[in-house]
Order: sequence, then C-alpha cells, then structure tokens
Amino acid sequence: MINVAILGFGNIGSGVAEVIEKNQNEIKKVLGDSLHVKYVLDIRDLPGVVRDINVIVNDPDIKVVCETMGGKEPAYTYTHLALERGISVCSSNKELVDAYGVELSAIAREHHCSYLFEASVGGGVPILRTLREACGHEKISRVAGILNGTCNYILTNMKAGKDFDSALKEAQEKGFAERNPAADVEGHDTARKIAILASLVSGKKFSYEQINCEGITNITSEDFAQAEANGMSIKLLGVYEAEGPSVNVAPYLVPKSNPLYNVNDVFNGIMIHGNQVDNLMFYGRGAGKLPTASAVVSDVIECVKNLGHNINNNFADLEPVASVKAPDKPAGQKFRVLE
Amino acid sequence: MINVAILGFGNIGSGVAEVIEKNQNEIKKVLGDSLHVKYVLDIRDLPGVVRDINVIVNDPDIKVVCETMGGKEPAYTYTHLALERGISVCSSNKELVDAYGVELSAIAREHHCSYLFEASVGGGVPILRTLREACGHEKISRVAGILNGTCNYILTNMKAGKDFDSALKEAQEKGFAERNPAADVEGHDTARKIAILASLVSGKKFSYEQINCEGITNITSEDFAQAEANGMSIKLLGVYEAEGPSVNVAPYLVPKSNPLYNVNDVFNGIMIHGNQVDNLMFYGRGAGKLPTASAVVSDVIECVKNLGHNINNNFADLEPVASVKAPDKPAGQKFRVLE
Repeated sequence: MINVAILGFGNIGSGVAEVIEKNQNEIKKVLGDSLHVKYVLDIRDLPGVVRDINVIVNDPDIKVVCETMGGKEPAYTYTHLALERGISVCSSNKELVDAYGVELSAIAREHHCSYLFEASVGGGVPILRTLREACGHEKISRVAGILNGTCNYILTNMKAGKDFDSALKEAQEKGFAERNPAADVEGHDTARKIAILASLVSGKKFSYEQINCEGITNITSEDFAQAEANGMSIKLLGVYEAEGPSVNVAPYLVPKSNPLYNVNDVFNGIMIHGNQVDNLMFYGRGAGKLPTASAVVSDVIECVKNLGHNINNNFADLEPVASVKAPDKPAGQKFRVLE
Repeated sequence: MINVAILGFGNIGSGVAEVIEKNQNEIKKVLGDSLHVKYVLDIRDLPGVVRDINVIVNDPDIKVVCETMGGKEPAYTYTHLALERGISVCSSNKELVDAYGVELSAIAREHHCSYLFEASVGGGVPILRTLREACGHEKISRVAGILNGTCNYILTNMKAGKDFDSALKEAQEKGFAERNPAADVEGHDTARKIAILASLVSGKKFSYEQINCEGITNITSEDFAQAEANGMSIKLLGVYEAEGPSVNVAPYLVPKSNPLYNVNDVFNGIMIHGNQVDNLMFYGRGAGKLPTASAVVSDVIECVKNLGHNINNNFADLEPVASVKAPDKPAGQKFRVLE
C-alpha cells in the first residue's frame, strides 16, 4: 500500500480522493499496489483533516503529495518542504508552476523525487507527458491550444447567436465561469498554460508576464457572422512559435479545415507541429473535477513507479527566455488567422 | 553511443534512419546519448546492408532492433531471436503484433528487454503509450477510431462529390492506396488495429479474425448526400465497447458535434472514453514514412531509457477473449450512428 496526502480538499483535491477510491482496481493493475489517502490537509475544519503540513512531511509513510490548493502560498512552502524530504509532489497549480516550477523541479531532482504537473495544463488531456515522452525527439515548431474551457464555452455560445454578456451569464449560472471572470475572459489563464507549454518544448523558461494577452471581451456577434461567412470560427488560442520565439494569447480565426475548429463547449484542444510527425492534436476536458483529478492521479502513478528516482520533467534547468515577441497582426484586421 | 539495427529498409525503415539522423540533437537531449544505426538488414542487395540476422543478434553492441519489415515471416523469427538475447524490439508491424504479440511480449519480459509497437496503430499518433501510461488507471468503456488513412482519404473525397471508383483511383495515383487496395478498403487493416487497441484496454486478447468487418466499397454518393442532409459524415471506424465486449469495423454515421467528424484526408483520429477523464481524442498522421518512423523512434528512446528492464506493454499475459460480438445494426438502416 502506497500512502499519499492531498493538500487542498476543494474541487480537484476531493476529485483525486474520488478517483483513487473508484478506480482502485485499475490502479492496482498498473501499479501492482494500491493507493491510500492517508492525509488530507485543508484550512477548513473538515472531519479527519489535518492542518499542519509537518504532520504529513514528517511521516515516512508518505511517498507522494498531491498539491491541489492553487495560488502561490502556502502551496510553494508546502511543496518545497515535501520535495526536500524526498516526497514527490503532483500539482494542478499552474500559477505555482509558472512562478516557481524551475526552482521546485531542481529541488526534486536534488532529492531524488519528482515534481509533476500534468493537471496544470489542459485538465484531463495528457499533453505534458506526451510532449515530454512521445515527442521529446521532435523539433516542435508550433503549439497552438484552446486552453480555457470557460472562454471556449462562451465563444461556442456566441457562435450559436448569443452576445458576450448573455453567454458569460449562462456560463456563470452553469458554474463554468467564476463570479469574477477576469482571469478567464482576459486570457490570463490561457497565458499561464501556454507559458508552461512553451517552456517545455523550447528549453527556455517563458513567464506568464512576458506574454502579450488579449481576451475575448471585445468580440461581437458581427465578428462571428463575418467569420462564419468566411468558413471560420473564432477561438481564444495560446500560440507558441519556435521562430522568434513568439508567444501570444488572443482570439484567432480558425478555418474549418483545422481540427481546432471543431473543439467546442468546455473542451480543450492542443495542436502541435513536429518536424517528423507533422501535426498532432489532443482533445479532452480542460477542466472539471474528475478529468483534472484523473491527470493528477496519472502523475501519482508515474511517481510511484519511479520511487527513489527523479523523473525529468524538462523544467529543472530552464533559463529565462531573453525576449518574447508577439506575432504581428495583419494591418487593419481585428484577428489573426491560425494558418 | 547506443547502437541500433533496422530490419527492413523500406518506407518506414529508411524513415527511422532519417529521423535518427535529422533529429540527433533532440534525441541526445532526451537520452543523454546519441543513437547510431549500426546495421540495416534487407533482402535487397543494397550497399552496406547485411542479410544475415545472426550478424545483428550476435553483436553485443546492439541494444535495440527496429522491426519495420511487415508480414509474419521472417519478422517473427527475427524478433524472437533478438528478444531471446535481451535485445529490445520496436515494431511497426501490426500483422505480427496481432498474431504473435502476446508470445513475443512474454519472451521480452523473460529476457529483461522490451517489445513495443507504437507505430503499428495510428502511425505518428502516440495512442498506445497514452493508453498504457496516461490512462492505465481509467475504466475505458469505448475506443472508436479512424484508423486507416487510405479509407479516410477516399471518404473525404466522396464527401466532396467524387464516387468511390474515382476517389480510389486518385488515392492510388497519389500513392495513398495500394494497387490491390483490399486490405484497406475492406477494413482488414482497421480490424488489425482495433484488435490491438481492444486488447490493450480490455486485458483480453482480441484477434483480427474474430472481428466483424465491413469495408467502404458499398458506400454511394447518395449515402453521403443523405448523411450530409442529417448533419453527419460517413467514416470507417474501428469500435471497441467494453460492454459485451463488442468490436466492430464498419462505416458509421458521425455527427458534426463529434470531433471525429472533422478528421479528414489521410489523418487518423482515435477517441476514447474513460470513466473519470470522459472523452479524449488524439489526432495525427496515421501513416506516411516520417510520422510512422517517428513513432518507432519514440519506442527506441523508451527502450534505451529502460535498458536491462522490461517495459510492461500490457500484452504479455493476455488470454484470448472468449467471444466477440458485433453491435446490432438498427433494423432497416445501412449504417450505425456513432453516439
């Protein structure tokens, strides 16, 4: 039996416990052993919950910790404490990965454990693992992704005729958008995710603050009508191009022939171009309790398979990128076109 | 320097040599070492080519062999010889995997090496690795795939107005279809691939011969017109359902809302449904020299990372499935609908 702890028992954290419980048989098959949630840490006064991180990191039974708290603190301090003791950490926290991922990855390597964060980008879509393992030998010239389910839900509804305000309102009523939707609709969430993807494939650390970021708040019903007349749709994309390098977050016109055209509602889609494999696209639920939790559990399994060894997550040695430019927008056009 | 050998220097085999040469820097980065093609084996009298498998398997320098010959013999005998000496084998040969994959995987395990075959399904799409590693803890209820690029090219052209015969002729002229296209258009190639996928996710060995197999030769332009009027397209799918279990190869009506609808030309798309992660879809070039060779190279890299250890490919212990049924077709309908 392998003991794990969950830090932060919100939506994703409780999902991790649920996936481990419901899929125990499948986990046992791939791991040859079962997973057991020994501790849950939360600031709320929940039954059976611990509030002192030291109880967890000082317990030699604990091999892996799931950090599903979000935000920088105390997630950074807790992750640091665990890794220093050789406990692997699996995170869904894109903000922390963007800000401290390089440092935390180096600490993991030094202490022969791992820092993995599949769930921080694309929810349930296994994109980081694929880039790292299946495509590590490819020269990746471009990554273009629909990375925010909230925006994609709103845009899908605008395509069907709604205006921005009522599409946002519906997303909020259904629980897909926060009451304060700025991080989503202004593109900052997408920027954090494309920064992580760009860092992984380029070997340089891209930071969220370096990225030109346009949201979806200025898109009108007329824009959609015009796009549709030209056989296109409008999608909020994060786009990395090796040439430059450039990274950009903005609404793009996506032609019908591109598989991202058909990625609708809360789904995410990530397209990559490798020099040998050509185009690949990965599609799945980019958010939501169980899909995201499933990605955390996939990381836990990989950490357990590699106990005592560091899994190279391609983040430990990244130097900051010198400069990032946004690609030019064609003069007089409101949107760029995804080629 | 890690020495490898390539068995069969046709389209894919020569592609493997090209990928290793062109992407040597990237390979070195992920492997910490370079790959070197020490031997090429072919029946043709090519310069620098060896014709005796014993030269290769008796050379202690050789750590990994790429089997890109196709067909059962001599691929089976050569693979057997290599694995028995602890040399890992990476194969693109779906026919061999379908017929002898279970036996060969057990031999690999016994001799602490690996038998991997990512390139045998979906060309450059990293689907086997994803099912094995990212989704090993999921209960997979369905796999539905567009698995044959030739058929998809023909069907894409029929959708655009061509009849079957002229679409086939064009595919042959462009080199996408064989002069004898039976294995593709009658669905046998798709059946071999869905048999491998079904085996991987179910834990039972499905054999190609057990699978109900309908091809695309009876599809008419009228069928496409009617499908389009109903907001659907017609795709040749291999479909596995855990319930039953059932496996089926046949043309299906695919609604616009399904991401497989937009998988066109020679591309492949594979959709899976897991109980936690929900729907995932993977898209890429299902055939072609370099994409397929890139998948072989990804396997080589994984074998080299695990020298002296067996990578569990989920095939070694599979018992034959007792019976496979095809799902019922609705009475009076020419096609099933992909839900």
